[in-house]
Amino acid sequence: MKKITSSFLLITVTLALNASTVFADEGMWQPNQLPAITKQLTKAGLKLNPNNLTNLTGFPMGAIVSLGGCTASFISDLGLVATNHHCVYGSVQYNSTAKNNLLKNGFLAKSFKEELPATPGSRIYVTEEISEVTKLIKADLTDAMSGSDRYKTIDINSKSLVAECEKDDRYRCSVVNFHGGLEYYLFKQLTIRDVRLVHAPASSIGKYGGDVDNWMWPRHTGDYGFYRAYVGKDGQPADYSQENVPYQPKHHLKVNRSSVDDGDYIMVLGYPGKTNRYRTTYEVKNKFTWVYPQAKAYREEIIDLIHHHSEVGSEARIKYESTLAGLANYAKNYGSMIHSYNKGNFYSRKQTLEANLAAWLNNDAKRKAQYGTALIDLNKLLKIDNEQQARDLILGYLGYSKMLTTANRLHRLAVEKQKPDLERENGYQERDIARFEQSMKAVNRRFDAKIDKEIVVAMLTHYVALPKAERINSIDKFFGLSNITALNFNEKKLRKQLTNMYKNTKLTAQEQRLAWMNKDVSDFEKSLDPFIQLAVTSFKERKMIEDTSKELAGQIQTYRPKYMEALIAYFNDNNLPVYADANSTLRITYGNVKGYSPQDGLTATPYTTLEGIIAKNTGIAPFNAPKKQLALINNKHYGVYAKKALGSVPVNYLGTLDITGGNSGSPTLNDKAEFVGLVFDGVYESIIGDWDYDTKLNRSIHVDIRYMLWTMEHVDEATNLINEMDIVN
Amino acid sequence: MKKITSSFLLITVTLALNASTVFADEGMWQPNQLPAITKQLTKAGLKLNPNNLTNLTGFPMGAIVSLGGCTASFISDLGLVATNHHCVYGSVQYNSTAKNNLLKNGFLAKSFKEELPATPGSRIYVTEEISEVTKLIKADLTDAMSGSDRYKTIDINSKSLVAECEKDDRYRCSVVNFHGGLEYYLFKQLTIRDVRLVHAPASSIGKYGGDVDNWMWPRHTGDYGFYRAYVGKDGQPADYSQENVPYQPKHHLKVNRSSVDDGDYIMVLGYPGKTNRYRTTYEVKNKFTWVYPQAKAYREEIIDLIHHHSEVGSEARIKYESTLAGLANYAKNYGSMIHSYNKGNFYSRKQTLEANLAAWLNNDAKRKAQYGTALIDLNKLLKIDNEQQARDLILGYLGYSKMLTTANRLHRLAVEKQKPDLERENGYQERDIARFEQSMKAVNRRFDAKIDKEIVVAMLTHYVALPKAERINSIDKFFGLSNITALNFNEKKLRKQLTNMYKNTKLTAQEQRLAWMNKDVSDFEKSLDPFIQLAVTSFKERKMIEDTSKELAGQIQTYRPKYMEALIAYFNDNNLPVYADANSTLRITYGNVKGYSPQDGLTATPYTTLEGIIAKNTGIAPFNAPKKQLALINNKHYGVYAKKALGSVPVNYLGTLDITGGNSGSPTLNDKAEFVGLVFDGVYESIIGDWDYDTKLNRSIHVDIRYMLWTMEHVDEATNLINEMDIVN
Repeated sequence: MKKITSSFLLITVTLALNASTVFADEGMWQPNQLPAITKQLTKAGLKLNPNNLTNLTGFPMGAIVSLGGCTASFISDLGLVATNHHCVYGSVQYNSTAKNNLLKNGFLAKSFKEELPATPGSRIYVTEEISEVTKLIKADLTDAMSGSDRYKTIDINSKSLVAECEKDDRYRCSVVNFHGGLEYYLFKQLTIRDVRLVHAPASSIGKYGGDVDNWMWPRHTGDYGFYRAYVGKDGQPADYSQENVPYQPKHHLKVNRSSVDDGDYIMVLGYPGKTNRYRTTYEVKNKFTWVYPQAKAYREEIIDLIHHHSEVGSEARIKYESTLAGLANYAKNYGSMIHSYNKGNFYSRKQTLEANLAAWLNNDAKRKAQYGTALIDLNKLLKIDNEQQARDLILGYLGYSKMLTTANRLHRLAVEKQKPDLERENGYQERDIARFEQSMKAVNRRFDAKIDKEIVVAMLTHYVALPKAERINSIDKFFGLSNITALNFNEKKLRKQLTNMYKNTKLTAQEQRLAWMNKDVSDFEKSLDPFIQLAVTSFKERKMIEDTSKELAGQIQTYRPKYMEALIAYFNDNNLPVYADANSTLRITYGNVKGYSPQDGLTATPYTTLEGIIAKNTGIAPFNAPKKQLALINNKHYGVYAKKALGSVPVNYLGTLDITGGNSGSPTLNDKAEFVGLVFDGVYESIIGDWDYDTKLNRSIHVDIRYMLWTMEHVDEATNLINEMDIVN
Repeated sequence: MKKITSSFLLITVTLALNASTVFADEGMWQPNQLPAITKQLTKAGLKLNPNNLTNLTGFPMGAIVSLGGCTASFISDLGLVATNHHCVYGSVQYNSTAKNNLLKNGFLAKSFKEELPATPGSRIYVTEEISEVTKLIKADLTDAMSGSDRYKTIDINSKSLVAECEKDDRYRCSVVNFHGGLEYYLFKQLTIRDVRLVHAPASSIGKYGGDVDNWMWPRHTGDYGFYRAYVGKDGQPADYSQENVPYQPKHHLKVNRSSVDDGDYIMVLGYPGKTNRYRTTYEVKNKFTWVYPQAKAYREEIIDLIHHHSEVGSEARIKYESTLAGLANYAKNYGSMIHSYNKGNFYSRKQTLEANLAAWLNNDAKRKAQYGTALIDLNKLLKIDNEQQARDLILGYLGYSKMLTTANRLHRLAVEKQKPDLERENGYQERDIARFEQSMKAVNRRFDAKIDKEIVVAMLTHYVALPKAERINSIDKFFGLSNITALNFNEKKLRKQLTNMYKNTKLTAQEQRLAWMNKDVSDFEKSLDPFIQLAVTSFKERKMIEDTSKELAGQIQTYRPKYMEALIAYFNDNNLPVYADANSTLRITYGNVKGYSPQDGLTATPYTTLEGIIAKNTGIAPFNAPKKQLALINNKHYGVYAKKALGSVPVNYLGTLDITGGNSGSPTLNDKAEFVGLVFDGVYESIIGDWDYDTKLNRSIHVDIRYMLWTMEHVDEATNLINEMDIVN
């Protein structure tokens, strides 16, 4: 479920303005909401007092951390961090070479000394405070202001709060909107900067089943890996240093070796990325009938060209493994979402909801006056925003070219540096510089000039088919495409120009990229580097697109909250509590271990076993389990980890939890908040879960702690780590 | 599971010499064996006395009939016959035109008058007597005789018995060997020659899921159809005539509308075609690692070329639908068998069995002396027989060319007619002439010159790659291929010659083919028809291949029974009863309604429901259920047919029965021998069932009587047929 995004546009203007209702195991709850749903939690089987879960620095919340994109948890008093294999994948890849392929062989540090630095820029974030700041953010807003001004005001207010919060430089802070901008919260996170790779099983365990099994059940993936948090000798966050010491968290999770059984209570604490449970029918239809099909096609095209231009096992292919995984993951995701959408009745239920809402509004003069046109007004703006979506999507995927993106970002940094820090764009403030530098350092590890060029060729081939009005003059001019359409496009000529660009650019060298970070706009304007020239010449137009988008975003910031307010009032009037759409902030989802029926005539049982690994094994990746593992299974060498009712060691299990990308790596906890596994995926039928939760079909997939410990003990002999954990039974 | 075979070789020399052991629901029992397994039958739930099942002309055996290749049963006192949709498919196709596409629309005769003639040559066979004739068959055999003489002696003895039996021309008789030639039985079958099509649902019901779902679970196929048997006014079999009247069988099955439940006893009475449960490891390996992979490739090649040269819905495509179905069915079958073989441990279990048998033989001097070299001797002959298998397989698939096959068969008929009837080859005796004539009449309904030609081109392209020693000189010479190999093969030149052949042949005309049936060998030798010329010129060499094959077959007829005798003695010594391999004779298999686990983490539940049809429906064939049906389901219009525990009408169910092709159309009976559905397929995991039965994985798939009646009543309004049946509850 890893999401890797990329964009050629200057920034991604996301306006997540959402909220939702409770049915069964649906819901990603903010910690402070838990006391309000005590009854449901107890009914599901929670043994703890829900009030204890609201204390961010207490147990168990204090043990839950974010990796930025993934979730993780402390499982020892020396800062050992458990997460998914696919969340440490980048770090394993970073430390891999064709000669010493850690991705293939796995990695185990038998002592602290052997632990390896994680991929540059890796961070562990510990949320310590969440405070509502809605009034502060909205203080200066007026109905009369333009969209741009509104956008800017919210932006500046947010940044001021963040700047204030980050005066203590151990912290990273952020302001996040909830319920479509109805509420804003400030998050304060302790930021650990020295992260080290401790252990990852071989990919033939950690990624067993690979893309074939991704989003699938039955599943047999050992999707776990371990980091360790390091701090300075003073116990405070510090940059990497050999002198650093393991971080000692206030709380860590106990590991329950007995795990859970069919029907048991489980919960996942984590940082779900983004859901869209409250979008309008217009948005839903556009997404499922245009955006997803088109994006899927582009992803598949890029996957194909990477495959075509790099041999399996080559340096180039290793560099792109992670990119490929992200592309494939979401190509499959989109395809499956489209499939679910076409098969199910999600859209018609949305229509019904909007009709019911309208009826409810029209039933009451006051409500009608207040919210009567909210949905129409909102949709009007959304339609304008989508007018250029064909072009924007192409430019987005053009962003998979590291050279184009690097040049654009470096130039933008120079532009932004001219402004006071608070007024700079997100990603270009002083607080972002260290991370920016890391990303510049990381370029070469995921870059191959030939492939990069092919991506540009492929996306520009789509670009020239766009109507004249949507084209960007400066880009047309730069590539000599001004009078070119799909009909007279000369790919050979373009390829020749690009070959020269890649030959002449200096941006492929790390020291050059870092040097450009400190130059000013005039240096860029004088540069002869072809990618920098392209960035400079196209900047004005790209900035215009961005400004138009912000104006619209600001306007939407007026209308989306209004619509959401109406929707929430409607739900509350029907006695339905409301949870906010996921927005990468700390949430709790709870439910039970439970199978489901994926199809008439089939039942997915809640556990898979070691024997299923053998049944799937072909010897060819992704079904090439290590020989040692296969031999252990054949000999029924289960150690202490077999589940009696199964007669074998459970590998993965199904839960009813409401999760999404960002939850990856979250610990799965039992009724006493003990660690019993890691959530790492959802089943095929819940891929559409980001938009629509179906109690019958939404299922989370977890790696069972028994399989983790069995593999660590018997296959990888990681006894040093097992001994480090607090294991209960 | 329909099998359509074809061969360019003169005859198919099959030497089914088999036998087997009993575990759980494994076993295709001869009726006379049932008293011996009374305990197992009662334990499984049979309420009848097994002795009653041995009476072929009593109830229920008297109601079970063969269609030749499929099984069927009488379900009314006016000769209404129930079988699978895929067993009446040919007759529906025969009556279909591009304008009046019965395959697509289905067919229902609302009165006797509206019933349509079945495809020419259709027969209903009612087995009335089975008698063991081993002594008579083997009377003249000596150890000294050559293989050819042995083959011929058995052949002549069989034919004499058949001729004697068929003196009453209402009967068709056959001598069949059991346990690899250890025993021979004479079968006497009343033959009904006027068969009419009564009802078939639309293919979007009867073939719902098509090739995609073939051999698959979950399944939602309404694989049923109805014939009616007609006889002369005297009640005796007669050729088609408007004066004929419905046949009144002595016994017919009652239909139990309540059907069966999970765990209930079920049994299938029918004519399973062929199993290979007692083959040697050598045979198994050769089949799974050479024959099946190669045959699969040829089938797929022919499917592709038919698709390529005929448009969907065109006359040509309609003509080849049935051929395509057969090709695809077994291409998938072979692929899946190979998959199962590679995945499972069937081969190693075979090896173990042979090792155990050897140990058991070596343990006893007498046994060792008698059977010690049986297996080695048998394998030696089998290896010789397989030396030219690459060529023979190509020639077999060349037989998909109707023109080549027709010319060969017509010429062979003239050759055989020179001999006394008893000495003629099977298929060319007087008793075969009517059927021969029907097949000549049917040619044009399944023939398109362009496609026929492409098949020849494709297979000759493989032929020229054969080593010189395996080539057939006369064929080489005829096509100018004598000095041609794969390296210098000129496809264009061949295609030109073939184009002329198809332009000049008269065999495409029915009256010409019928005329040739009455000509003698010299007429053939003088003919200018290019296909006849090819048949004549290649005859001598093809006959030599046949004779060599018969010599080997005769030798194998000495050694296979010896090996089988050893194997049976070994099993009996271990207290294991033995059933014979399937050989298209009447058998009983019993067991229970039961799901299974196709994969770790998945359970196939024993029933599918109407709602599953909607879930699969895409609107595009083969998932294009009729709109009327979909509407009825959406409205939960279940009539009296819902199964309470499911809350819907069951469509298909799973059983543990041991079936194979030929069982298609067999009635599924409950513990009181009432009709509760039709068996029509097996699950993916039991495809290898012809070779190996696995209690955990072998499952038969049945269409539930409730779905048949629901569809007939509510979708097709076939109330006339429902009223005709004896329905109990």
